[in-house]
Amino acid sequence: MRTTEMMNSYPAEINLDRELLARVVDTLVACSQACTACADACLSEDMVDQLRTCIRTNLDCADICDTTARVLSRHTGYDANLTRTLLTACAQACKSCGDECARHADMHEHCRICAEACRTCEEACNELLAAIG
Amino acid sequence: MRTTEMMNSYPAEINLDRELLARVVDTLVACSQACTACADACLSEDMVDQLRTCIRTNLDCADICDTTARVLSRHTGYDANLTRTLLTACAQACKSCGDECARHADMHEHCRICAEACRTCEEACNELLAAIG
Amino acid sequence: MRTTEMMNSYPAEINLDRELLARVVDTLVACSQACTACADACLSEDMVDQLRTCIRTNLDCADICDTTARVLSRHTGYDANLTRTLLTACAQACKSCGDECARHADMHEHCRICAEACRTCEEACNELLAAIG
Amino acid sequence: MRTTEMMNSYPAEINLDRELLARVVDTLVACSQACTACADACLSEDMVDQLRTCIRTNLDCADICDTTARVLSRHTGYDANLTRTLLTACAQACKSCGDECARHADMHEHCRICAEACRTCEEACNELLAAIG
Repeated sequence: MRTTEMMNSYPAEINLDRELLARVVDTLVACSQACTACADACLSEDMVDQLRTCIRTNLDCADICDTTARVLSRHTGYDANLTRTLLTACAQACKSCGDECARHADMHEHCRICAEACRTCEEACNELLAAIG
Repeated sequence: MRTTEMMNSYPAEINLDRELLARVVDTLVACSQACTACADACLSEDMVDQLRTCIRTNLDCADICDTTARVLSRHTGYDANLTRTLLTACAQACKSCGDECARHADMHEHCRICAEACRTCEEACNELLAAIG
Repeated sequence: MRTTEMMNSYPAEINLDRELLARVVDTLVACSQACTACADACLSEDMVDQLRTCIRTNLDCADICDTTARVLSRHTGYDANLTRTLLTACAQACKSCGDECARHADMHEHCRICAEACRTCEEACNELLAAIG
Repeated sequence: MRTTEMMNSYPAEINLDRELLARVVDTLVACSQACTACADACLSEDMVDQLRTCIRTNLDCADICDTTARVLSRHTGYDANLTRTLLTACAQACKSCGDECARHADMHEHCRICAEACRTCEEACNELLAAIG
C-alpha cells in the first residue's frame, strides 16, 4: 500500500491528520479483503448451511469497507457530515461481522482471522470518528 | 430491472415490504448511474475547475448508493441496525450531492437531471427508514 | 433509470451510438442486481450446499457487471482497447453465470430469472463489442 | 493486509500458487487505492483541465482493480477462463493508467507514485496470467 505517500502528495489542505487517515484507509481495505475471502471460505465449508449469516454479513462488510475507504481517500470538497455518518455505518458493519465471525472462530481459522480484521477496523473507524468530533 | 421479480422469488421471509424494497433498490441503482455519468460529464465541461466539489460528491454518492443497493438486495440474516445506519448515510450522501448538483442545474443539464435523481433517492431512503422504524 | 437522459446531456462527442450504450448500461446494471439477489436467495435455500458454485459465480458476475457499467458510463478520454477487453471479460462472466444459473432454473425461480438477465447481458456486451469493432 | 493468512485458511484446494495469488491481490488493492487517491489529487490541482483523461483513467483502473482483487479472493468454483479474461482487462487498465500518469509524473508527485503502482500491478497481472497459462 502506498496510502501514506499518496496522502502526503495531495496538493491542498486535508482537515484531518494524514497519518491517522492513511492508517484507517489501510485498515478498511484489509478488512474488506478479509471479508471477501471469509465469505468464499465459508462457502467451501462442509457446514455451509450453518454459515449463511456469516457469509451475508461478510458480503455487506466488504462492500461498506470498500466504499468507506474510497470516500476517505478523497479530500476535495470534504464533507464532515457525510464522513461521520458513513464511518458510523462502517463501524456498525464491522461490529456485526466481527461478532458473527467470532462465533465460528474456534471452528474456522478464516473466521478467527476475519473477526480480528473486523475488530481492528471497528476500532479504527471509532478512532477517526473521535478525531472528527 | 428485474428487481421485483427477484425480490418475489426470495425463498424465505423478508421483514420489509417487498414492493417498497424493490422500488428503493431501483432508485438507488438509478441514482448511482446518474452520479457516475454526472461526474464524467462535469469532467468534460470547459469550466471543470468550478465543478471539483460536484465531481467529488458525485463519486461518493455513486459508491454509497451502489453499496446500499447491494445491502438492500440481501435478506438472509437481516440486520435492522446496519440497514438503518447505512440508509442514514446514504440519505445524507444523496442530500449533499443533490444540493451540489442543484447549484449547477441552470448551467448543466446533467447536473439538473442528477439533482433530480438524488432528491428522489434521498426521499426513497427516508421512506424506507420510516418503514424500518 | 435516467441513463439515456444522462447520456444525451454529455457535453462532448461520444464515439459510440448513445442509444446502444445506454441500453447496454441498463442491462449491465439490471444483471448486477439480479446476480446479487440470486446469490443471497441461493444462500437461503435448504440445498445451499449444492449452490456453492452458483453463489460464487453470481458474486463475480455482479462485481464485473457493476464495473463495466461504470466504465461505459464514462466517455471522457475514451479508450477503445480497454473497453473492448473489459466487455470481453464481462460477456464471459455473464456466460459463466448464465450457464450455472440455468442448471438450477427448474428448481429455483431466482436462478431462472437470473439466467435470463445474464443471457440478455451477454448478448448486449457482444452487440456493443461488434459495434466497437 | 491479512491476505496470505486468509489464503492459507481456505479449506479446499486452490489451483494456483497461494503466495503468488496473495501478492497479486495485495498489489491490486494497493493500485486501486492509489488510483482513487490520484483521481482526487488531480481534481484539486490548479491545472485540472489538463488532467481530465488522467482522472477518468484513474477511476476506471480503481474500479477494475477492485473487482479483479475480489474475483481473485474467491476460489470456490474456480473458472480459469473468466480469471484469464479479467486479468487481461486489468493489465490493460493498469497499462493505460500507468502511461497516462507517467505523462504528469514530473509535475505531480501523486501521478508519479500512481504510475509506479500501475506498473507494478500490470506486471503482477501478467505474472499471474503466465502462471495460469
